[in-house]
Amino acid sequence: MTARVDCVALDAKDAIAPLRDEFMLNEHEIYLDGNSLGPVSRAVAARVNEVINDEWGRGLVRGWNESGWMEMPTRVGDRLAPLIGAQPGEVLVADTLTFLLAKIIGGALDLRKDRSVVLTDVANFHSDLYIVRAMAARAGRPITVKAIERSAIESELNDDVALVMLTHVDFRSGEMLDLKGITTKVHDAGALMLWDLAHSAGAVPLDVTGANADFAAGCGYKYLNGGPGSPAFLYVRKSWQGLLENPLPGWLGHARPFDFELDYEPAEGMQAFVTSSPSIVALAALDGALDVWDRASMDQVRAKSLQLTDLFIELVEARLPGVFEIVTPRDHAKRGSQVALRHPDSYGIIQALLQRGVIGDFRDPDIARFGFTPLYLRFVDVFDAVEILVDVMKGESYRDAEFAVRNAVT
Amino acid sequence: MTARVDCVALDAKDAIAPLRDEFMLNEHEIYLDGNSLGPVSRAVAARVNEVINDEWGRGLVRGWNESGWMEMPTRVGDRLAPLIGAQPGEVLVADTLTFLLAKIIGGALDLRKDRSVVLTDVANFHSDLYIVRAMAARAGRPITVKAIERSAIESELNDDVALVMLTHVDFRSGEMLDLKGITTKVHDAGALMLWDLAHSAGAVPLDVTGANADFAAGCGYKYLNGGPGSPAFLYVRKSWQGLLENPLPGWLGHARPFDFELDYEPAEGMQAFVTSSPSIVALAALDGALDVWDRASMDQVRAKSLQLTDLFIELVEARLPGVFEIVTPRDHAKRGSQVALRHPDSYGIIQALLQRGVIGDFRDPDIARFGFTPLYLRFVDVFDAVEILVDVMKGESYRDAEFAVRNAVT
Repeated sequence: MTARVDCVALDAKDAIAPLRDEFMLNEHEIYLDGNSLGPVSRAVAARVNEVINDEWGRGLVRGWNESGWMEMPTRVGDRLAPLIGAQPGEVLVADTLTFLLAKIIGGALDLRKDRSVVLTDVANFHSDLYIVRAMAARAGRPITVKAIERSAIESELNDDVALVMLTHVDFRSGEMLDLKGITTKVHDAGALMLWDLAHSAGAVPLDVTGANADFAAGCGYKYLNGGPGSPAFLYVRKSWQGLLENPLPGWLGHARPFDFELDYEPAEGMQAFVTSSPSIVALAALDGALDVWDRASMDQVRAKSLQLTDLFIELVEARLPGVFEIVTPRDHAKRGSQVALRHPDSYGIIQALLQRGVIGDFRDPDIARFGFTPLYLRFVDVFDAVEILVDVMKGESYRDAEFAVRNAVT
Repeated sequence: MTARVDCVALDAKDAIAPLRDEFMLNEHEIYLDGNSLGPVSRAVAARVNEVINDEWGRGLVRGWNESGWMEMPTRVGDRLAPLIGAQPGEVLVADTLTFLLAKIIGGALDLRKDRSVVLTDVANFHSDLYIVRAMAARAGRPITVKAIERSAIESELNDDVALVMLTHVDFRSGEMLDLKGITTKVHDAGALMLWDLAHSAGAVPLDVTGANADFAAGCGYKYLNGGPGSPAFLYVRKSWQGLLENPLPGWLGHARPFDFELDYEPAEGMQAFVTSSPSIVALAALDGALDVWDRASMDQVRAKSLQLTDLFIELVEARLPGVFEIVTPRDHAKRGSQVALRHPDSYGIIQALLQRGVIGDFRDPDIARFGFTPLYLRFVDVFDAVEILVDVMKGESYRDAEFAVRNAVT
């Protein structure tokens, strides 16, 4: 079994270990919930204060031009693009994930007017299910949304399927799907593919270009550390730009926004998917949060992520044999950057851990969920977290814990 | 004619003059563009830093509960409510104005399924026109959007009109409409009334309750000083809550967001109009910006606003007789908190003023627009601005000015 001294050694030779210093973390806490909300980095605070005091404070309305606010959604999008394997000009940052999904779902159904089915995973995050049904109801023709088991998606593919919407890494189990394999099958059926990358971006290597994905979107507040309710990101493959229409158009997506034209004419490229001015302060936070990626490659992050999750699984099994069901796949090719443990008392266990300074979260009905974020987590953190879990499981307090982190945002 | 010494005296006895100290303003500049983007107040910077360093920094994911982030859209909405004459529980702050309009337009068309016309002002801000057409196209039945002259709206009211959407204060001319009178006529025709209050909130007294308005929305970055791209606000009269459905639903608007239910069931009250987590950092900026209203009544602000705009009009006419057409109504009952001057060289004039430290903006094709914001403008500022305008008009430079503030966001 890996010993604490081994973890210390692993940390000592970890090339990205110094990045931890960029983040605000509480002493005596082990934060295993960066898959819900990433922590603040120094650059976030600096960039936000630069916007408030300088760009907005001194520049006032001139900031729209002089500080490049007009281009900020696409500029920050371009910074984010390499993390998902997109090209410059294919990513936009704005709004929230649900609105961006709405834009794609509405636009994609317009592109496939001869088809009337949307396939999606019943285990999707519920917002995705609500918005796909809502946009389907407004498609101008009858659309059937089939929210089914992931394993049944493939057998349901046929020439009536307009769009398939799947989440790449499951928010409960942490299971990762085959981006390229599934996209290829969806294309073979003549359907369009929309990926929700909320639990993937910044967590696992992504190659939307190589997978030939049509559309993708994700949020900025998990592994990208952009802050609570951070603007989300949208990817539209270059070949769809100009064809896919934004069903929620606004003046900032107009070809000539300052000509105040009565009729909407979309701007070129990703700008057409901007609706109205997103919060520049919020964009600045995400912009700052992306700085850390200048110093870490996704390959480094992935390698460490797998080491961290392997270690966690190994230690949980060694120290607490048979106590938990390990829900997250062992197969690296199917694992995101979190580990989900199943236990009937998961809710109380998460509470008891919280009281001991280990922050994970609970997901209905019986999942204890732990995110492993290589930018700021150490191997010793994993070791210590498991030791505390062992200690918690020795007592009885977890059986009657009070409500608390249940309401943590996924 | 009012002399500078008179302005100094007016400032000296102005009860809300001390509020100017709350704002970051550049020395040697006169900012007459707060109707486009309000300046930073001290409380904004303080509140944003509190969120970043304390609530998010130390609280991490716990902020959603412990710092009340979950309730922030409705809590900040309740703070804003008195400024528009709404009751607690009738206002929400989230998203951007265009998305909030989309929600109301979609929901309102569903409420009036037996009617097929939307009336709106052709002079509306163009985003309003784009989104009303976009949502009409997705209503599930043929809808005609009539974008017509404001003066023709009344004669077009009939029992086929589902919704009337008007902007209360025109963004070009500064003309203010009769909130109650028009709402009553719209109701008499059995239609629903949606007011765009972008240029009204924080600028003029509003009484959506007294006017019996059905719905209203506005942005947070003009007279409310919430920052570039600040979250917008939405008002839904209590009696419509529970009946009006959100066409862009998300998990945070669900009755039980943490039960991860497959089917959408709206939360009670305004929470049903929240889609997904809005930026907490952006909400914090607006929250801080509202602090100043604890020290000023809307009546004080309105009285001073009329004095400032009266003074500007008086001085422009006295010092530059016949040079400009005063587009903004003289009638106080029809005036917002800006003055629009028409001149064929308006574009160059705004440029020349900018070079002299007077910041207004240009609106196509020939409007020079000046916002008068009583929270931080002095009477001497108005006097000095007109003197500089006089000086600019003496020269020739304004006839060949370069492009610059044209791209300022309205």
